[in-house]
Amino acid sequence: MTDEEYMDLALHLAESTKGQTSPNPSVGAVVVKNGTTAGMGAHLKAGEAHAEIHALQAAGNDAQGASMYVTLEPCSHTGKTPPCVEAVIKSGIRRVVIAALDPNPEVSGSGVKRLQEAGIEVSIGTGNNRAEWLNRYFMHFMKTGLPYVTLKTAVSLDGKTATATGESQWITGTESRKDSHRLRHEHDAILAGIGTVLHDDPSLTARAVEGGLQPVRVVLDRHLRIPLEASMLQDNMAPVWIFCGAEASTEKKRNLAQTGAVIYQASEADVQLAEVLSILGNENILSVFVEGGSEIHGRFVEEKRFQEFITYTAPVLIGGRLAPTSAGGSGIAHLNEAPRLEVHSVEQLGQDIKVTAVRKGNE
Amino acid sequence: MTDEEYMDLALHLAESTKGQTSPNPSVGAVVVKNGTTAGMGAHLKAGEAHAEIHALQAAGNDAQGASMYVTLEPCSHTGKTPPCVEAVIKSGIRRVVIAALDPNPEVSGSGVKRLQEAGIEVSIGTGNNRAEWLNRYFMHFMKTGLPYVTLKTAVSLDGKTATATGESQWITGTESRKDSHRLRHEHDAILAGIGTVLHDDPSLTARAVEGGLQPVRVVLDRHLRIPLEASMLQDNMAPVWIFCGAEASTEKKRNLAQTGAVIYQASEADVQLAEVLSILGNENILSVFVEGGSEIHGRFVEEKRFQEFITYTAPVLIGGRLAPTSAGGSGIAHLNEAPRLEVHSVEQLGQDIKVTAVRKGNE
Repeated sequence: MTDEEYMDLALHLAESTKGQTSPNPSVGAVVVKNGTTAGMGAHLKAGEAHAEIHALQAAGNDAQGASMYVTLEPCSHTGKTPPCVEAVIKSGIRRVVIAALDPNPEVSGSGVKRLQEAGIEVSIGTGNNRAEWLNRYFMHFMKTGLPYVTLKTAVSLDGKTATATGESQWITGTESRKDSHRLRHEHDAILAGIGTVLHDDPSLTARAVEGGLQPVRVVLDRHLRIPLEASMLQDNMAPVWIFCGAEASTEKKRNLAQTGAVIYQASEADVQLAEVLSILGNENILSVFVEGGSEIHGRFVEEKRFQEFITYTAPVLIGGRLAPTSAGGSGIAHLNEAPRLEVHSVEQLGQDIKVTAVRKGNE
Repeated sequence: MTDEEYMDLALHLAESTKGQTSPNPSVGAVVVKNGTTAGMGAHLKAGEAHAEIHALQAAGNDAQGASMYVTLEPCSHTGKTPPCVEAVIKSGIRRVVIAALDPNPEVSGSGVKRLQEAGIEVSIGTGNNRAEWLNRYFMHFMKTGLPYVTLKTAVSLDGKTATATGESQWITGTESRKDSHRLRHEHDAILAGIGTVLHDDPSLTARAVEGGLQPVRVVLDRHLRIPLEASMLQDNMAPVWIFCGAEASTEKKRNLAQTGAVIYQASEADVQLAEVLSILGNENILSVFVEGGSEIHGRFVEEKRFQEFITYTAPVLIGGRLAPTSAGGSGIAHLNEAPRLEVHSVEQLGQDIKVTAVRKGNE
């Protein structure tokens, strides 16, 4: 088997842990001795052993003189667990193949350096694109301190998120909705505007996936209009964080706090996205899944404060110049100022089409 | 080679003539004798020889005892050319494989019957889906007497056809625009509303393709607001047909007629789509390519007077609750009344995504 094939296995291991390791990245490792797989492992949960340690444990004495394939540069610092590079060196591994370097500019490359100093041959870059894509939330957060923002929308073939009379359940099919629940689960937070909360009373939980982490539910609610009876304030399924403007009612704040919701009061009368994202970053939220509505998406688009845009398009036509679309607001006036994206993938999910696109000049 | 493989060849021949045979269908034929290809041909142009005749001519005496693969049921009536079935019988062909029956309810199956009466073995249905798709305009027209209507739109990833300030050139890339010109060429008419004509002064010609037929340019213009200086009235590239309301100015009608444009005056103050399509059908227009704008598309959607919907989506976001979308108008009020489609294909054209969808319960 080639380096690519062993790295492919390590990436599969890593990908199987998507949505369960945050704030840590998903990492897989494979130990290969004389052409046979001697050990493998993945980082399963923040605070627990890293992928390299699992793989080395499985390999035991076979690590001696073996190669290791690991999807992310082994750490050289002591966090909640001891540094992996020391364990790798101690195990007798002779060669390490790394898909992606640590994105943290302060430590990037230091794991490689330490391995090389110990006489281990290091090769970097095999499987790089896939490893970077897998951990794009983590990579973005480590570089910017801000969460990776994904705007998600479900539309008709003519781009409507609802009829002009407000009907939106359901435009897309069950496969799309299931996929969207899976994506909620992979993000640290789900964000919605108060308009969507008042209109749909959504629970904003990741229901389609058994187990796993439940993302924090974030609501932008300038005037604290959310009713105390809102489903998400009653169900105890996941934390609720509400961002209100500087002039929101103190009494309503107090009442909401009693439901267990956490209230963040913005410094201005309106809630600015920049401030929300900065606070979420400080709270160790690496990724935000924005589920609208149209006006909220429009703001993220206008301010270019997003990294990814996902549309589920159903083969139905709704029409209507007043029907909402996936991005409202005042919009971009000139085409040359509109954010450009790159299509990452196009998939058919049942009758629907899912497009995943990433903003160019993303960070 | 199998029946499927020979029919595949016949379909390739037929497909190569798309856009050049109207009002006739695209048809290909292959003659096979003792496992070798003895003749092949396609119908090239209305009024000229049918595919079967070309293939039989190429085969000569080899037709004796051979099989023929033909994408559409051979005709049994005398049109501009003598009936093909008689030529097939006379040639000594022993077996005929047909992809699709003649869609005209009055003659469908009569070619098959005549061949069988002459002792020829007939097999029907190989390659049927592809043959029906290839001639869907022809099939629809023969069954309904009305043109097949394709709504075409070019949008941003958030479904906008222009910015709120009206900028639309260019949202999609060169590959999409080239493909769209190819589609113009395959239709008998291109239709646009007066709003689009006033805003863009389009020529509505099929420029990207060398040769071939130029579709008729149809403008819906209730009040005859089209300026006499409009590009399409000046360029002599293809006929211009203008549909105006019952109350349009007689003087403007006269002036427009002097440019060579043909004016159709509707029976009501507003121009009704049903009347337009019925007139186009009577004028032997088998297919109409509707190029907007948003309000015209909205009307076709609301009245469910279309068969196909094609979107070219560019990876750019425009936003804006006032930016136009691919279907405006008043829209469908309730989701259960919205026209449902089936996705026929999803293609990537350069950076863009092309979706072709067909309305369910199409005819």
